[in-house]
Amino acid sequence: MPPSVSVFGSAGFTGALAARLVLRHPSLELRAVTARSDVGRRLDELYPHHRVPFELEELELDRHADVDAAIVAYPHGAAAPLVAELRARGVRVVDLSADFRLHDPEVYARWYREHEAPDLLGDAVYGLPELYREQIRGAPLVANPGCYPTASLLALAPLARAGLIDDVIIDAKSGVSGAGRGLSDKTHFVAADENVNAYGVPRHRHIPEIEQELAALGADVRITFIPHLVPLDQGELVSCYVTASPVADLEALYEEAYAHEPFVELSSRPPGVRDVRETNICRISVHRDERAGRVIVFAAIDNLWKGAASQAVQNLNLMLGLPEQEGIGPTASEVREAVR
Amino acid sequence: MPPSVSVFGSAGFTGALAARLVLRHPSLELRAVTARSDVGRRLDELYPHHRVPFELEELELDRHADVDAAIVAYPHGAAAPLVAELRARGVRVVDLSADFRLHDPEVYARWYREHEAPDLLGDAVYGLPELYREQIRGAPLVANPGCYPTASLLALAPLARAGLIDDVIIDAKSGVSGAGRGLSDKTHFVAADENVNAYGVPRHRHIPEIEQELAALGADVRITFIPHLVPLDQGELVSCYVTASPVADLEALYEEAYAHEPFVELSSRPPGVRDVRETNICRISVHRDERAGRVIVFAAIDNLWKGAASQAVQNLNLMLGLPEQEGIGPTASEVREAVR
Amino acid sequence: MPPSVSVFGSAGFTGALAARLVLRHPSLELRAVTARSDVGRRLDELYPHHRVPFELEELELDRHADVDAAIVAYPHGAAAPLVAELRARGVRVVDLSADFRLHDPEVYARWYREHEAPDLLGDAVYGLPELYREQIRGAPLVANPGCYPTASLLALAPLARAGLIDDVIIDAKSGVSGAGRGLSDKTHFVAADENVNAYGVPRHRHIPEIEQELAALGADVRITFIPHLVPLDQGELVSCYVTASPVADLEALYEEAYAHEPFVELSSRPPGVRDVRETNICRISVHRDERAGRVIVFAAIDNLWKGAASQAVQNLNLMLGLPEQEGIGPTASEVREAVR
Amino acid sequence: MPPSVSVFGSAGFTGALAARLVLRHPSLELRAVTARSDVGRRLDELYPHHRVPFELEELELDRHADVDAAIVAYPHGAAAPLVAELRARGVRVVDLSADFRLHDPEVYARWYREHEAPDLLGDAVYGLPELYREQIRGAPLVANPGCYPTASLLALAPLARAGLIDDVIIDAKSGVSGAGRGLSDKTHFVAADENVNAYGVPRHRHIPEIEQELAALGADVRITFIPHLVPLDQGELVSCYVTASPVADLEALYEEAYAHEPFVELSSRPPGVRDVRETNICRISVHRDERAGRVIVFAAIDNLWKGAASQAVQNLNLMLGLPEQEGIGPTASEVREAVR
Repeated sequence: MPPSVSVFGSAGFTGALAARLVLRHPSLELRAVTARSDVGRRLDELYPHHRVPFELEELELDRHADVDAAIVAYPHGAAAPLVAELRARGVRVVDLSADFRLHDPEVYARWYREHEAPDLLGDAVYGLPELYREQIRGAPLVANPGCYPTASLLALAPLARAGLIDDVIIDAKSGVSGAGRGLSDKTHFVAADENVNAYGVPRHRHIPEIEQELAALGADVRITFIPHLVPLDQGELVSCYVTASPVADLEALYEEAYAHEPFVELSSRPPGVRDVRETNICRISVHRDERAGRVIVFAAIDNLWKGAASQAVQNLNLMLGLPEQEGIGPTASEVREAVR
Repeated sequence: MPPSVSVFGSAGFTGALAARLVLRHPSLELRAVTARSDVGRRLDELYPHHRVPFELEELELDRHADVDAAIVAYPHGAAAPLVAELRARGVRVVDLSADFRLHDPEVYARWYREHEAPDLLGDAVYGLPELYREQIRGAPLVANPGCYPTASLLALAPLARAGLIDDVIIDAKSGVSGAGRGLSDKTHFVAADENVNAYGVPRHRHIPEIEQELAALGADVRITFIPHLVPLDQGELVSCYVTASPVADLEALYEEAYAHEPFVELSSRPPGVRDVRETNICRISVHRDERAGRVIVFAAIDNLWKGAASQAVQNLNLMLGLPEQEGIGPTASEVREAVR
Repeated sequence: MPPSVSVFGSAGFTGALAARLVLRHPSLELRAVTARSDVGRRLDELYPHHRVPFELEELELDRHADVDAAIVAYPHGAAAPLVAELRARGVRVVDLSADFRLHDPEVYARWYREHEAPDLLGDAVYGLPELYREQIRGAPLVANPGCYPTASLLALAPLARAGLIDDVIIDAKSGVSGAGRGLSDKTHFVAADENVNAYGVPRHRHIPEIEQELAALGADVRITFIPHLVPLDQGELVSCYVTASPVADLEALYEEAYAHEPFVELSSRPPGVRDVRETNICRISVHRDERAGRVIVFAAIDNLWKGAASQAVQNLNLMLGLPEQEGIGPTASEVREAVR
Repeated sequence: MPPSVSVFGSAGFTGALAARLVLRHPSLELRAVTARSDVGRRLDELYPHHRVPFELEELELDRHADVDAAIVAYPHGAAAPLVAELRARGVRVVDLSADFRLHDPEVYARWYREHEAPDLLGDAVYGLPELYREQIRGAPLVANPGCYPTASLLALAPLARAGLIDDVIIDAKSGVSGAGRGLSDKTHFVAADENVNAYGVPRHRHIPEIEQELAALGADVRITFIPHLVPLDQGELVSCYVTASPVADLEALYEEAYAHEPFVELSSRPPGVRDVRETNICRISVHRDERAGRVIVFAAIDNLWKGAASQAVQNLNLMLGLPEQEGIGPTASEVREAVR
């Protein structure tokens, strides 16, 4: 029997997509989808294109937690108590919120609020498979990374690991789905269409997450990180401006780092977010700016896929001993194999 | 009798808009529009929304140069010979190409090609009124700035003049009209829609122009400048990351610099390109990133207006002794006056 | 002294634009802008691109109604009581709601709700200047047409007047600004982007308004009218499929009808909504489908301009004895004159 | 060994997508991709998101026609001679052009040009599986329907078969990918963005195809068909206005017609093109306009998928005896099954 999975918080963009990916997954069984709003509505009425013929149910732990694994797509702060309940019942959890990404509850408190389940922080693995694949296998609780940290860390990891980063500025561009399903003046079509602007200046909450992981890789820096909203639906590009120590062969550094990664793709030209839409792939290019003495790295992902839901399934696959790439679309490595 | 103006190269986006602005200008008379393609077609057939009922004519200097002033909207390289002919006949010229922006013909040769009219470089004034208003008045030849330099220099001038800039990275985002009317794979709707990507990496031709003018303001730096294409029509945002010497009151520095500028608008929130669409206004916000010790400046313009055609008319107004703001829409200063 | 105008309900898209047009109008004085939400905020904070440096005020009739004229941009139902108060004080009113468009209060009740000021219906003139110019001059109360009726009636009037219409289907496409500033699932960027779909099927409230005016022109038909949402901001196209009696010269019929109209423009090719963006112009083309024996008429307007706010100012101009085209941008007739 | 397939004409949008679908198909082997331009370039360089690591080759029939089946994605007129060659070698062919859709070469000549392989017309089956499933199985040559006919016929077939159609007007809206990869003024981003307009008025080439198939279903009518370009990439909506004989239960008629169709989905609300993006599904809703006595049917498809490439693979599946839904994504019937 395939492992059973419930998705908690399926009325939002990432929870709904997670439900679709689990439903279509050849080795998982979608058991239930819960929501905090829109209870009683069918998910395929809210999101016809996902074609998930399940009713959104009100949370009932006795029924919904009787599963092998859970994906939690609750807002920051609301996730921790639910995760704690699920863990208490022995359910493996991938949490899409920020609640278990920061190891230090004080840092969490500074950027978010008081942490409600600090005891669990020790069990949580940061769910970026390209950095923590072994720890994720068998982990009881995986904190799925933020979308910006996913793209930024994949862009910078080879340089960070090689100890080459002195300073980093990350200028990010995200489609509007990144702002979530909630209605607000900035997600109104008329506000976002034919517009570009920065937001969260200068203290976006993804900063401590990126810094924590860069430090773990060996780059102890204070970054500047500025996200911009661009008029498209799904897609995210980070442009990283790195003051770097000299490196003999930049391209080789990246090729080596990612030669065996199923979901990282290198490109000689700057990637576009179209190139990765509706995939779990991160597409990266690296360039030298000789005049200014900098290294520039671009990384493109689909913010709802690799930046959230498909990466959650990638983590589930690892946690449950399934093939890592199952159920989440084409891989970069397929193409590499085909070419060789 | 109002001064007469011909627009040369009116089949492209900026030339067509320049023709519209001159036609609707209360104190100018549009005499003729010429083109190198589409000759014989009516401009209002090509661009119905401009409503310029003029036929595109083949260049005939004897007829078309019998005017007080000219706007030249030719490609780089092609402009210089025409400008030389016009100047030989005593016509005042605003040139939209890069041909007269760089003072040093060797720098021009390095980034573009051999210069075809180096003798005229001495006569040319760099047409950013906020920096060179007095020199533009009465100048025979004005080199209209590039769209990226316009936004970047207005964003950085107060810091540069105060001697505060140590290092600058400019991450720019531009609508597709910035790529011009020419057909190419990257301007196809299907390529640009739902996409964002960098281009011209890492040596975009606007770099020497920005560096020349920053140096003139006192900031002798090598910049990193990376433009990105975003899926919208008109609009351009520059995000400038500045390593700056400490400054007591950043906001005051900008307020002082721009208090009397009719077309510069300060905002406490990051500007969106929608805010300046179809205006000659540059909207700027300045922020401190205390954690990383940087200053961040955003500037938004309409690349076809302040970035090209309406700035050309602003320059014409100055050259011909007309009120600077005539015929180019609302000003930022109107609003400031109204509020006081 | 120029006539003074207050705009009531300025926090929405059409009220905000009306305020901008009145503020920039050479012969009107904007006195105040009121709102039912966002009171205390500056209009140029909500809508930076309109550059109206006025604070949104709570309604105080004693202060705000002490003007020569008013534009009311309230929702249907809420407008009637305010209009009644303004009329009681002798203020001339252009009302943007549907409350005074339908002559028969029973029809209004059937499509909207019980009418709250039926006594005033007799004073109200239907504000489509191309049909009722003379009645609008001097009218105390003008009911500004809906955006779909504006485009549809201008498309069909020449055929209707000539008694040629047997049957009409109107398939309309509107940008998202037509749905107003209110937040809803369908105005979220992610819902509207890369999408097209019909709404209000099959009983959209603009139907009785179109039928009433077609009947007044001589075409007593029951129309099918279906609007669609398309992923753009401002702009509306109606495609009208007419079963028509034979007509000798279709083009001549339209040319004659609109030869002297300042804001109607005929085109031989189907108009695009880009062609009329941010203008008060309606652009029309008419075609014969010989095979199927039908006449097809397309009409494009900017739904916020000719479909609402600039048409309101066109009506104000007529009511106040000002030149009809003042303050609302380029006219079609300018271009015709220039060409002759 | 799985059947081998070559895709001819893979540099265009539909040919490239067809190559991707064949490459990822569990029971087909992609052998080669040819092109008439861009020869020597890798397909995944032209279309990174398709991830097809094949080089575009110049046509060499001896090599490329040594396959079990072919998909031909050539322009109208150019396809017929290639199809004839492939058929002469015994290759089964799905042809994406219009060359084999019209049974009568004189009708073809009237709307296109002289037919170059009229002898083959007798072998060709019209490839709309919902109408001709049995004939397609085992057919040597299948003419893949046009995108507009696909949506229109699926919208109208139940009414046509029941003999209820007296008259039809089809107002269609298509994304820009429908115009193909060729560069033209109308596919430039700046022309299509924030725009809607009709084209091909009033004689679009898909008319005879729709009329031929409606007649085959029992509705011998002359249709009015007008397509519009809308600012999105992939997606097509047809709005059909039908003068119909009275029908007792409209919904039941459609439910019965499509109860077992794997790729037709009924909806009570008007479908959006987003609902079917990147699927082989046609989503349909049917409505009664009681007031005007009409039936209105909406059908949404992805013009590149069900409107071209995935329908070609659906046809290939039938021709080769494979499961009809293999390799072309989620089906509507999956969802129906799940719900029952």
